[in-house]
Amino acid sequence: MEMFRKLFTFDEARQIIHQHFKPKPLGVEEITLLGACNRVLAEDITATLDIPPFNRSTVDGYAVKAEDTFGADENNPARLKLRGTVNVGEPTKTAVTCGTTVEIVTGAPIPEGADAVVMAEYAERKDNDLYVYNAVAKDENIMKAGADIKKGEKVLKTGQLLSSREIGVLAALGMAKAKFYRIPHVAVLSTGAEITEPGRKLPPGKIYDINAYSLSAAVLESGGKPVYLGVFPDDMTELQKALKQALASADMVITSGGVSVGPKDVMPKALDSLGKPGVIVCGIAIKPGKPTTVALINKKLVFSLPGHPTSALLVFHLLARPIIERMAEIKAKKNLRVKAFVAMRMFPAKGRRTFIMVRLKRDKSNRLIAEPVPTGLSGAITTLAKADGFVEIAENQQYIDVNEQIEVHLFNR
Amino acid sequence: MEMFRKLFTFDEARQIIHQHFKPKPLGVEEITLLGACNRVLAEDITATLDIPPFNRSTVDGYAVKAEDTFGADENNPARLKLRGTVNVGEPTKTAVTCGTTVEIVTGAPIPEGADAVVMAEYAERKDNDLYVYNAVAKDENIMKAGADIKKGEKVLKTGQLLSSREIGVLAALGMAKAKFYRIPHVAVLSTGAEITEPGRKLPPGKIYDINAYSLSAAVLESGGKPVYLGVFPDDMTELQKALKQALASADMVITSGGVSVGPKDVMPKALDSLGKPGVIVCGIAIKPGKPTTVALINKKLVFSLPGHPTSALLVFHLLARPIIERMAEIKAKKNLRVKAFVAMRMFPAKGRRTFIMVRLKRDKSNRLIAEPVPTGLSGAITTLAKADGFVEIAENQQYIDVNEQIEVHLFNR
Repeated sequence: MEMFRKLFTFDEARQIIHQHFKPKPLGVEEITLLGACNRVLAEDITATLDIPPFNRSTVDGYAVKAEDTFGADENNPARLKLRGTVNVGEPTKTAVTCGTTVEIVTGAPIPEGADAVVMAEYAERKDNDLYVYNAVAKDENIMKAGADIKKGEKVLKTGQLLSSREIGVLAALGMAKAKFYRIPHVAVLSTGAEITEPGRKLPPGKIYDINAYSLSAAVLESGGKPVYLGVFPDDMTELQKALKQALASADMVITSGGVSVGPKDVMPKALDSLGKPGVIVCGIAIKPGKPTTVALINKKLVFSLPGHPTSALLVFHLLARPIIERMAEIKAKKNLRVKAFVAMRMFPAKGRRTFIMVRLKRDKSNRLIAEPVPTGLSGAITTLAKADGFVEIAENQQYIDVNEQIEVHLFNR
Repeated sequence: MEMFRKLFTFDEARQIIHQHFKPKPLGVEEITLLGACNRVLAEDITATLDIPPFNRSTVDGYAVKAEDTFGADENNPARLKLRGTVNVGEPTKTAVTCGTTVEIVTGAPIPEGADAVVMAEYAERKDNDLYVYNAVAKDENIMKAGADIKKGEKVLKTGQLLSSREIGVLAALGMAKAKFYRIPHVAVLSTGAEITEPGRKLPPGKIYDINAYSLSAAVLESGGKPVYLGVFPDDMTELQKALKQALASADMVITSGGVSVGPKDVMPKALDSLGKPGVIVCGIAIKPGKPTTVALINKKLVFSLPGHPTSALLVFHLLARPIIERMAEIKAKKNLRVKAFVAMRMFPAKGRRTFIMVRLKRDKSNRLIAEPVPTGLSGAITTLAKADGFVEIAENQQYIDVNEQIEVHLFNR
């Protein structure tokens, strides 16, 4: 642990995490179409049949051999023998031969021998005879098999996030299920002698746990599945037990609290005791979030975030979210950033990458303005609720000036 | 049914639906915080306690009476008797009186009698005496009870969509659950003799069902919960049974297929047989989607959409989605529309409100361009998968010209 006396810069911390852990999909699972919305496809989909699967009529009318109608007009109708009817959903029983026709409805399969359909309004039925008053060309009023999707055509690609529309394509191909990337499970726990789970009576000197709930929701918002484990005291044995359970039940672990510099901060020691390489980052030169600790245990990342709710959620967004998204194979959403003008001059903390919570609003000229949310109270939960996102200021930057246009990272879309 | 020989205009159809059915929330349910992400709050939340609940130290140091330190400096330290330690999560046992001090860590409650905290680095301990080298003012290094949220303060409002950050606020107040609007349940079924459920072998003349799957996913995307009922034949008795089951199991029903003008279109009759007022709209002057039928049965809306996948999903977006969103109390998302330039001249169908599927792309000057997706094949499922949204052309409009800037309605964000 001696190596961790020095704080890493933000870029160093990200680099070290990346050196130790390359996020990749966690495997593949089969899911039925009804559960496929918003899931990421883990296979290329190639059509195993033509869509439509057969030549279909696009109108209500009569299936014919086109040549039988050539030259037909109002004064000189073609006369054909009616040989039955084909409805939708029925196989074609009666073939059309020269001089014969079969009644057909929209969507029904074209009978064998027929190569065009005469619309009902251009024909007249008299007993078993049909008079056709309009010539039709070959293929007229027919949607050919494979006209929409050809058998063998690649229709969807690995990595596509499926919406109602792509699910329609899978259904059209008769696929009741498909392969999707597994959702990363992320265990979330809070530590600290002072915190109590919501819903219980608050003992004197205690505060309610915020982070396990806000971070569980943030995991969900990042495309992961939270595994809520609750609150644990800052006790070596208890923490080791909790972390072992967390590592066994999830693909990543997020803890908060217990990582500042007080005498009870046993988290880094507990992390180092559970497997190699253990703690890889212990303290980052960022504000807020300096006490952040990152460990790798049995090839799983553990992020130990600060106890302050705003700092915890911010560091989650900076470091954990991009990794969860890559494990889920979700393309990082471009619209999680917007450009805005700065409402007042903002300074970085000396020597630290600084993140300032901002609220967005429109000014009179409808420009998007980023207004810092007061963070004088470092533990303030209201800061978090009021902020739409945050602004990043580099370590060596003097300040961001009023009216400068900057990029705001949004917490949510 | 005679009254329905005439098609309604799009605006008339919407007006009639609105006259018969005013969408409103379906009631309220209590949900625990872990299930609250993306749910809409159905109560105003007023703080039932101060946050923080007690005066907390913001530093590691010593709790004192400020006046005991007045005048203290490096050469002339104040000398106080050390009376113990207060840790985080502990009630304060020892009061601070004149001339005494209690050691305190960050986050711990300020002991009775103390009104300031001296930072550890400005004090020196010698046995049971503490030498303070710096004066502190009253309230220095203390975060007062209620400084973040005051008891009685309204912190969240009915109608708010909760994200990780608002969930943090509920947790801070010790609320393990809260009241949320119930999610509308929407039954989805397909009708037609020609359709078969995906996953089965395709009999000759049949096609796979698309709509029950794409519409179920679209219900989910609109903030509803789909109740998938499957495929039913165009048979009066079967349809009545299916519709009764759908109406009993959901707050709204979406069917597709079986509403065009063929002899087997029993859907409007089935709808009219089940309750008053029955069918309220039967055919709309729109393209695509003309055969759309809307019924109100036992105060529940039934949308009977066309069988073509593109038409069905389009009419769902036009008519059903806004109602589901209002039943769910979800504010319609502004970012479901974008401005784009038209790639080629687009004409409306004569006398009908026309919706043209478009794909969005960027041109060389990075302008957003709306390019019509070929819809020559009206049943084409690929049209749907390729379109990002649609453009609306009014009945009386001649055309939308190339390079005109128009609004594109997006299927998804």
